[in-house]
Amino acid sequence: MAELIEIICVGNELLIGKTVNTNAHWLAKRATTLGLKVHRITTVEDDVEEIAMSIKAALERKNRFIVTVGGLGPTFDDKTLEGVAEALDCKLAVNKEALSMVEKRYRRYVEEKRLETAELTPHRVKMAKLPEGSKPLLNPVGTAPGVLIDHGRTTLIALPGVPAEMKAIFDGSIAPLFKQAAGELTYFEASLDVLGVLESEVAPLIDRVMRDNPYVYVKSHPKGAENISRIELHLSTSAEDAEVGRNRLARAVVQISALIEAKGGKVKPLKTAS
Amino acid sequence: MAELIEIICVGNELLIGKTVNTNAHWLAKRATTLGLKVHRITTVEDDVEEIAMSIKAALERKNRFIVTVGGLGPTFDDKTLEGVAEALDCKLAVNKEALSMVEKRYRRYVEEKRLETAELTPHRVKMAKLPEGSKPLLNPVGTAPGVLIDHGRTTLIALPGVPAEMKAIFDGSIAPLFKQAAGELTYFEASLDVLGVLESEVAPLIDRVMRDNPYVYVKSHPKGAENISRIELHLSTSAEDAEVGRNRLARAVVQISALIEAKGGKVKPLKTAS
Repeated sequence: MAELIEIICVGNELLIGKTVNTNAHWLAKRATTLGLKVHRITTVEDDVEEIAMSIKAALERKNRFIVTVGGLGPTFDDKTLEGVAEALDCKLAVNKEALSMVEKRYRRYVEEKRLETAELTPHRVKMAKLPEGSKPLLNPVGTAPGVLIDHGRTTLIALPGVPAEMKAIFDGSIAPLFKQAAGELTYFEASLDVLGVLESEVAPLIDRVMRDNPYVYVKSHPKGAENISRIELHLSTSAEDAEVGRNRLARAVVQISALIEAKGGKVKPLKTAS
Repeated sequence: MAELIEIICVGNELLIGKTVNTNAHWLAKRATTLGLKVHRITTVEDDVEEIAMSIKAALERKNRFIVTVGGLGPTFDDKTLEGVAEALDCKLAVNKEALSMVEKRYRRYVEEKRLETAELTPHRVKMAKLPEGSKPLLNPVGTAPGVLIDHGRTTLIALPGVPAEMKAIFDGSIAPLFKQAAGELTYFEASLDVLGVLESEVAPLIDRVMRDNPYVYVKSHPKGAENISRIELHLSTSAEDAEVGRNRLARAVVQISALIEAKGGKVKPLKTAS
């Protein structure tokens, strides 16, 4: 069984349809590839209560990791850490290591003549106010540090919402943790392009292949435009042994392809099993 | 106060990072533009319990609308209506009107020679099994009907996950409902492109503008690449009177622009107020 992770995205821009949530997509893909199972993604407002409630609910769902994205910056509406502190019932306090990271960044901006003063204004100090017991995570491309807090069996991670910053902190500080938690478990997938049969014709074939291949999950995604029956079939499995994983997928691909072709459909691999 | 809506997306493909959730983005934008307030978006697995739990939780949050997306098709993993029935503690039963919609679609496919038989197999009938008390919504471009159920003050709507089908049902059956619920309330927004100042310098200016313009929400989105300080400022408000809404926005835009320029930054409108 893969370890569970939940992603909580914070930001009104996602809820008014201003921004497509590509951060959640990127994180979900990376976590899945590293062998974890993302079992929920929640997007909430820039509101302390909403953030705290969503984190509390996620803590009850026995996740190994909870990752928040967004709301770590210097403006009034960056409220994620306040929400985390409320959810964990702890206080926010200036973290010396985080403050030194923030100060270092502004000093560099002054050196680069992008800024007149590295003065630690209240809005700048805000980014170093972390929930008690937090470990700041180096932000190699921006100012606000990421945050890591262990809470019982769950590790809570807060990442900034600027995509480049989120990705850099993830790759530097989080990916190794995820890999370690996942152990040897790896995710394998394959996609088939299916033409000439309707989804309702494929449905009973999927049932049969999933019965015969209990470790493989098969999902159909209709892609047809007007008057063309086109389906993408996505097959996936997780396994500790790469050969076992690939063989399982291969068997299921061969069987579903044969069944669909017997119905008059055409099947083409879209990508090889990872 | 705008009426609240929550979006619940169902689909493993979103949780493994295979698919970017453009459906949620599209719906959030349309709902916001129509005058509603999207206050949460949740993505859950193709799992009856997960779907039911997320709907139950949303029902407790006093939403005027809950919209589910995905999981209405003919395959084993299309489980949304099972989840809805469990959340509302009612049964699934074949809905005659829905069955007639499904049958009509398959007859058309037979006429178009895309299909040999319009026979109502169990996988096809499945799409017409709706929670008791449901109203099926015509799907003008696909097979699975949308579903509408009134539950106390909340209207629960289930839409298919194929984007063209979701959009067609939304435009045909849902948009008028949303507009009616929103009344005269309209959403207004404006975006500014800000160059040459850091987010931590703009933060106190935003505080001041929001204090002076209590109905306008100002949010900063850092867009800077390496060595360039670029911020998008997004200003928004909701108002029943269009002139009031536009004037509120204009006042806030003028004030924040002046404050930023006084700090040495450059401000350019990205789009005019809607």
